[in-house]
Amino acid sequence: MSNYTAPVEDMGFVLKEVVEIEKLCNETGLDSSTVDIIDTVLDAAGKLAKEEIEPINKPGDSEGLKIDGSGKVTTANGFKEAYQHFVEGGWGSLQFSPNYGGQGVPFVVAASVQEMWHSANMSWGLCPLLTQGAVEAITLNASEDLKQRYLPKLISGEWSGTMNLTEGDAGTDVGSLKTRATPNEDHYLIRGQKIYITWGEHDMVENIIHLVLARLPDAPQGIKGVSLFLVPKILINDDGTLGKPNDLKALSIEHKIGIHACPTCVMSYGEEGGAIGYLVGEENRGIQCMFTMMNNARLTVGLQGVSVSERAYQQALSFCNERVQGVAPGFKEHGPIIRHPDVQRMLANMKSITQASRALTYTACAEVDYSLSSLPLEDLEKHQRRLGLLTPIVKGWCTETAQEVASVSMQCHGGMGYVEETGIAQILRDARILPIYEGTNGIQAMDLVGRKIISDGGLGARELITEMKECTKNSSLTGMASTSQLGRLTRSFDDFEAAVSIILKHSENKELIGKIAFDTLMMIGTISAAWQMLLSLERASNAFKNNTSSAEFLKEKTETVQHFLDFILPRYLSNFATISASSE
Amino acid sequence: MSNYTAPVEDMGFVLKEVVEIEKLCNETGLDSSTVDIIDTVLDAAGKLAKEEIEPINKPGDSEGLKIDGSGKVTTANGFKEAYQHFVEGGWGSLQFSPNYGGQGVPFVVAASVQEMWHSANMSWGLCPLLTQGAVEAITLNASEDLKQRYLPKLISGEWSGTMNLTEGDAGTDVGSLKTRATPNEDHYLIRGQKIYITWGEHDMVENIIHLVLARLPDAPQGIKGVSLFLVPKILINDDGTLGKPNDLKALSIEHKIGIHACPTCVMSYGEEGGAIGYLVGEENRGIQCMFTMMNNARLTVGLQGVSVSERAYQQALSFCNERVQGVAPGFKEHGPIIRHPDVQRMLANMKSITQASRALTYTACAEVDYSLSSLPLEDLEKHQRRLGLLTPIVKGWCTETAQEVASVSMQCHGGMGYVEETGIAQILRDARILPIYEGTNGIQAMDLVGRKIISDGGLGARELITEMKECTKNSSLTGMASTSQLGRLTRSFDDFEAAVSIILKHSENKELIGKIAFDTLMMIGTISAAWQMLLSLERASNAFKNNTSSAEFLKEKTETVQHFLDFILPRYLSNFATISASSE
Repeated sequence: MSNYTAPVEDMGFVLKEVVEIEKLCNETGLDSSTVDIIDTVLDAAGKLAKEEIEPINKPGDSEGLKIDGSGKVTTANGFKEAYQHFVEGGWGSLQFSPNYGGQGVPFVVAASVQEMWHSANMSWGLCPLLTQGAVEAITLNASEDLKQRYLPKLISGEWSGTMNLTEGDAGTDVGSLKTRATPNEDHYLIRGQKIYITWGEHDMVENIIHLVLARLPDAPQGIKGVSLFLVPKILINDDGTLGKPNDLKALSIEHKIGIHACPTCVMSYGEEGGAIGYLVGEENRGIQCMFTMMNNARLTVGLQGVSVSERAYQQALSFCNERVQGVAPGFKEHGPIIRHPDVQRMLANMKSITQASRALTYTACAEVDYSLSSLPLEDLEKHQRRLGLLTPIVKGWCTETAQEVASVSMQCHGGMGYVEETGIAQILRDARILPIYEGTNGIQAMDLVGRKIISDGGLGARELITEMKECTKNSSLTGMASTSQLGRLTRSFDDFEAAVSIILKHSENKELIGKIAFDTLMMIGTISAAWQMLLSLERASNAFKNNTSSAEFLKEKTETVQHFLDFILPRYLSNFATISASSE
Repeated sequence: MSNYTAPVEDMGFVLKEVVEIEKLCNETGLDSSTVDIIDTVLDAAGKLAKEEIEPINKPGDSEGLKIDGSGKVTTANGFKEAYQHFVEGGWGSLQFSPNYGGQGVPFVVAASVQEMWHSANMSWGLCPLLTQGAVEAITLNASEDLKQRYLPKLISGEWSGTMNLTEGDAGTDVGSLKTRATPNEDHYLIRGQKIYITWGEHDMVENIIHLVLARLPDAPQGIKGVSLFLVPKILINDDGTLGKPNDLKALSIEHKIGIHACPTCVMSYGEEGGAIGYLVGEENRGIQCMFTMMNNARLTVGLQGVSVSERAYQQALSFCNERVQGVAPGFKEHGPIIRHPDVQRMLANMKSITQASRALTYTACAEVDYSLSSLPLEDLEKHQRRLGLLTPIVKGWCTETAQEVASVSMQCHGGMGYVEETGIAQILRDARILPIYEGTNGIQAMDLVGRKIISDGGLGARELITEMKECTKNSSLTGMASTSQLGRLTRSFDDFEAAVSIILKHSENKELIGKIAFDTLMMIGTISAAWQMLLSLERASNAFKNNTSSAEFLKEKTETVQHFLDFILPRYLSNFATISASSE
């Protein structure tokens, strides 16, 4: 029996009613036939996730990976087969350009499908996630020749991709990296060692395309002297067939607290003279090329937070419905622990955080679609600004809350949660990578405050606040949330504005800005999530009136939104008090 | 190299200046010569923790435990030897009665020493922790004959003790247990299976004394039909020597997310007719007997939270001082990450939470000493009330914050934190049991609100609030904390009072009370910790004036307290807003 069922109803609701996918397709020029098949797509993906990808999750955690003396990595039992079915189903190519074999589906729809993979099996899901990043970096930066040669098989999923940034002394400080690239004929020779390379080596595909940051000879010091190279595991012949193995290998696999079935590799390039690599984009502009993929990867890591929360919530809900223990208030007989008010509080916290983080994440993913469209410049810039602002919020807030939801799910299980057999321990262990990779949440906070609030003088933040405030004026909300709940929300938007003013006022005080950045991230994250909950409530109400959703769905959404406003929204008050106190 | 150095300066400060150990000894009639040797005791314990108990922590986690077909459990390499040295040093007997071989040291001093064991090695430290509980239950409830026979070797540590409550269908709901006890000559025959028995079977001692909850024939249903039995692993001959093995064994060891070196056993009693057990206390009063040990065990679990926080903080501090990455604001060169404001914030959060939780926990432990003394009845009742109130707060708040501190410590490590080799992953995995065992934190919250606030009409809570408020009036604080910091603190005490009023007003609404109990626990915990920080500041100031502590110590304490008031205290605002919103 699978422990996960894709929440297709809420996913479909967020796509259709909150994100307004039809409007999105019309405005961005994406194929609007997607709209009609969303339910079919979600159902089919849900089936694959439940029946093939989830069942290998726990065994994969126990079994882990094998690496032999030559650096060959064997994945856990069943991983390869599930991946094969994923490729056959065309699931990897959804959002990519039809010019290279993609299906041209909106990014946000592909994101909703990806939510399922990560709920079902985070270790496994990381392989397509990294491939997606490689496709984006190549699409946006590589020469047409490289695109023709590499994109089709990456997009189909027959090959997978990686991101090679980190070295032993270059983590957050990418500019300190030491890997070298030397020009040689029509290519470069890459020499150096990279660490923490997710799915750096494995047996699920016939070729792995590594995107590697390295330094050219005489490149400027630091981040401005870093270039991006495409380094295939197996070289490609002129006719497109696989040729000789390149000069690279996995040296070892990290022994991690979680994602045991995901090979996190130490990669060595050029031990026998130099790995052949091809420049992607301009020389010394590697970090800019990498950023295009990193930004979407950050959103996708936020999405993984949604996945973890959904999965952890489902597991807790199922346990609390089954576990009989004690007599709850208002009952006379022993019954399931879900009857106890404190258990209900835990479940409602989990559920409302999950739904809010989903709406927030999908909303940000929709901004990717708008940002890549041919809208008039002014509109486009506004969407890009919004995407930039939401990206660190989604990455930070949704992964921090995922830790909480996973931990609360374990708490619902009591002593049984602490035992590995129950399965929630793995979710908690797997989830803990989310606030760390793709830029720690501390880095997200600095990005938000520095590059997304201070650098545009608060423009993007104020646009968002204005939109939030308009939302509370919607008359259809009357009676669905109490006056005091709506009042709290309105006050939170004012406080958001006040926090932005504090930040702008002290923007030169880097010490202070650094100290309050994380609280700012969490504050704006909570308020943005509340805004999305309000929006969800309004849209659920409209959908019910328009007969596109049930009374039951509206009732549940109303309860969940109200719970969020009472139990989760108030959290920003402590962040705001800390921001205010620090700036006194 | 050991990764832990006992924080003897802060421990000594809290014992001498915050808890006022000399006054405690004088008022309770405990031997006040303890006071003169506190530093020596802390230093000696710190040496044992650092040199013998910590070095086997990580190897023990990797190695784990072995169990053979007969149920014999072998502990990890070095565990037995370290335990032997612990026994030889008399460390297990500190706080127990000299009538049975104990040293009559105040409980709070023994607690400070225990903090070290759990920082050094939580798996190992659980063995003496459980023994302490068994000693307490026997001391307070058993016949003189049982005491004479079992206490001396339990107190010396030559034997260890266990608590057997849980069964498959009886966790939080202890009253559902099914283990049977049948009278037989001068003893009882015990038959049944218990789960989650910490250190239920192992090779570090020659005998294990199990305290087992079971039902007599025809006992009333539920919690009122449960009796407590002493069931030795090896029976004791009349002359006190070890006799035949009893009819009991470990069936298996749980595979847990953490505390891998601690045998959490499924125990089987009476498979071959019945395990011989002796009644402790009165028939059907087992839960009352167990509660005496459970209450102190709850405090000690809170103390483990302090231990985890201290250890996690030390590891992060050391890493952040060593790890070079990036150029911090105000610097021109690459340097250690501790220079970055967000890293400083994380470290200061960890440090201030650790110190606050230590002061709060030791203060509660001192109430154990007062509660066991021969003070006049009115005073005694007040101390018992305070102990009752603080126990769930210490257990709940200090273990919740320990999760955060362990997680933030991992965050400070970046990607390296996620790799097991670094060691912080183990701390996080080990720590996760704390909010679960000895009554989940949800149960602590219900205990606090129901049994500690509602049942005495808010008397104990108001006594505490009055004491807190007096604290802010102390003139020696002027200039040490800002007016707005002190104002925030004063407001928090008012809000605490308001929360108590809300609870009392709605005391009949069990649904609501259950829903807001956890937020109440966290709110009161944060405010109580802030109160202890304020007290610490005042006492540090006095100690400096009296030349009993250094200017440097005062400066550091001042910074830590101020950070707590700006960054941690505001958290209660969100709990209070939730409590207020829910009760509207």
